[in-house]
Amino acid sequence: MSRVTVETGGTVVKLCLGKETMRFHSIWLRDNAQDDETRDQINGQRLIALKQIPSDTWVSDARVEADSLLITFKPENKVIRYDFDWLMENNYDEVKNLKRGWISQDHETWGSDLAFVPSCDYDKLIKRNILTLKWLGDVRKYGFGKITNGPITEGALFKVIELFGYVRETNYGKHFEVRTEVDPSNLAFTGLALQAHTDNPYRDPVPTLQLLYCLESSAAGGENMLVDGFKAITRLREENEEYFDLLSNYSARFEYKNNKDVHLKSRRPIIELSANGELLAIRFNNRSMSAVNDVPFDKMENWYSAYRRLGEIIDDPDMEITFRLNPGEAFIVDNTRVLHARKGYSGTGKRWLQGCYSDKDGLNSAFYSLEKALAKESSHEA
Amino acid sequence: MSRVTVETGGTVVKLCLGKETMRFHSIWLRDNAQDDETRDQINGQRLIALKQIPSDTWVSDARVEADSLLITFKPENKVIRYDFDWLMENNYDEVKNLKRGWISQDHETWGSDLAFVPSCDYDKLIKRNILTLKWLGDVRKYGFGKITNGPITEGALFKVIELFGYVRETNYGKHFEVRTEVDPSNLAFTGLALQAHTDNPYRDPVPTLQLLYCLESSAAGGENMLVDGFKAITRLREENEEYFDLLSNYSARFEYKNNKDVHLKSRRPIIELSANGELLAIRFNNRSMSAVNDVPFDKMENWYSAYRRLGEIIDDPDMEITFRLNPGEAFIVDNTRVLHARKGYSGTGKRWLQGCYSDKDGLNSAFYSLEKALAKESSHEA
Repeated sequence: MSRVTVETGGTVVKLCLGKETMRFHSIWLRDNAQDDETRDQINGQRLIALKQIPSDTWVSDARVEADSLLITFKPENKVIRYDFDWLMENNYDEVKNLKRGWISQDHETWGSDLAFVPSCDYDKLIKRNILTLKWLGDVRKYGFGKITNGPITEGALFKVIELFGYVRETNYGKHFEVRTEVDPSNLAFTGLALQAHTDNPYRDPVPTLQLLYCLESSAAGGENMLVDGFKAITRLREENEEYFDLLSNYSARFEYKNNKDVHLKSRRPIIELSANGELLAIRFNNRSMSAVNDVPFDKMENWYSAYRRLGEIIDDPDMEITFRLNPGEAFIVDNTRVLHARKGYSGTGKRWLQGCYSDKDGLNSAFYSLEKALAKESSHEA
Repeated sequence: MSRVTVETGGTVVKLCLGKETMRFHSIWLRDNAQDDETRDQINGQRLIALKQIPSDTWVSDARVEADSLLITFKPENKVIRYDFDWLMENNYDEVKNLKRGWISQDHETWGSDLAFVPSCDYDKLIKRNILTLKWLGDVRKYGFGKITNGPITEGALFKVIELFGYVRETNYGKHFEVRTEVDPSNLAFTGLALQAHTDNPYRDPVPTLQLLYCLESSAAGGENMLVDGFKAITRLREENEEYFDLLSNYSARFEYKNNKDVHLKSRRPIIELSANGELLAIRFNNRSMSAVNDVPFDKMENWYSAYRRLGEIIDDPDMEITFRLNPGEAFIVDNTRVLHARKGYSGTGKRWLQGCYSDKDGLNSAFYSLEKALAKESSHEA
């Protein structure tokens, strides 16, 4: 049962679909019209600027026709059709009581109890089939994913990146080598575990994806460890709201320089929220944090307590999952969410990984477009 | 006259330098120690995590010695030296009354009265000398810069990018061609002016720099036009605080898709502020804005009024500067701040530009490291 009314002098359209009621403003409807004068029918880009729509736009008529709404706009005298599905998808007439630090429903946080490591064989990924889509979806959901049974050849990491985007080249190159020869006569090497961290917080924008690809791994130890930063932040907020506020309201500072041509600095909070409180990113990297001076004097002591507590949560074994990368295996992480670390080595042997950076928007784009392509295929088959 | 006291049981150090008084917390001082157990002396990276510093760290002694402060930390019994210069540079004991929308002092906003277009000859840029530094500083300050007398050869744009970073490759390639043949028999071409906009708002992270390099330009018209988005936002805030709040408190949505493998979406405000209210970015692009549904129903009408007003300010000729690119000339813009547009063409002729994206952190890094290198050189000469 659908019913439509035009209210407040034509500035609002009210649509009742069964039990659901949605209101839309005339200017919003007009600006989002999908007709071929307003939108390019091929690429969907808008062809007009807002100034080309009269500011006194109002709706003179609204009627229901076959699961869609037909709206007549004045003074343009333009009739536009809106599918109910599209209207429901873009409905903004609902109260969203979002708590600061809310997490997008695209994500699912995890700890050491995560039942499985999202994995896909290299061959299957390359085929861009339903398994690729499943894996891309898991990476979006959990913030990381493993790749198995890939070729053990230098540069194979680029083949993986090509699947969902482009390399973000930096001062470390198109890729970087992570190469260690464990020498048992130098015990310093064996204990070199690194605290879980995000990479390159001194960069702005930070690389939002990292790939690590294993080519050699004969040393004992050296497992990879991951921690869901969004889970850690959520725990911090639940334990101590003030700590959460301190780390999200004030910027930390990060810095990296070499002796030659690189000097990178950023000023961003450890916990980054969007304008409406969505948890966007964590930056956590003790090595490259520089002197914080955006926190007011009377909050600095508590800011440090908050930072210390977040570090303790991150170090809690309940938070971590570990797995070993064997030659031909790789993993990617969302570098704005998932922290990574390396356990220490022991014994003798070699470890050689190649790594590179990329960006999440490419991965999301690959997901959306593969989803659409596979849906089209299966509808052709049906 | 300098004087130092230790207060509140060793948790705070108070330093008086002439008329200035600065307080520092023991934990902050200890965490930012520059000794070789805390910091790598080559790359400046911190070698310890916060958990390796006792949480009950306190200062048992503080004394002044030759323009520096000598602090003894307990329970570690560690003595660390801090230069007064460094302490002043990182002082956090001052009240900052920052207004939402404040602009970093690295930037200077401008309108049509901007007295000059920051420019540098290609040859001088390549030499990485004091003129390069001046130009990089201007780009940081004004958000754009022109390059003149460059080679008229395909791919010359990459030589420019190499000066201060790396190409951000996207679905549009490592670079893209902007090529138009003006055909006076098709008047549609002549009027194709574009409203000033930022590029790729549907990407996350957006490319923070854009370079446009001219190889051919025999058509009349087609001037490049730039608008300082930070100036436009400041004007909006001064005119109507509520409009400013609406565009910064709620996210817009942006989208771009082709028929194959690209589908990019983002959800970000038109005016992006940092946690402490610094103006970080403007996203303004009518073509790729999709249906906004993060704005509550009772604010949507005003949100549209705010968006319309911002567009009017951007279109105000008082805001724009225009210049023409001739073959061998180029410009870069900070794509998070400066909007760009193209005026319409007339007559006959051709116009061919090559463009690419890059990131600001590379440009800043080039600036800081060149500044240091030149300072070192001049001190050697002296």
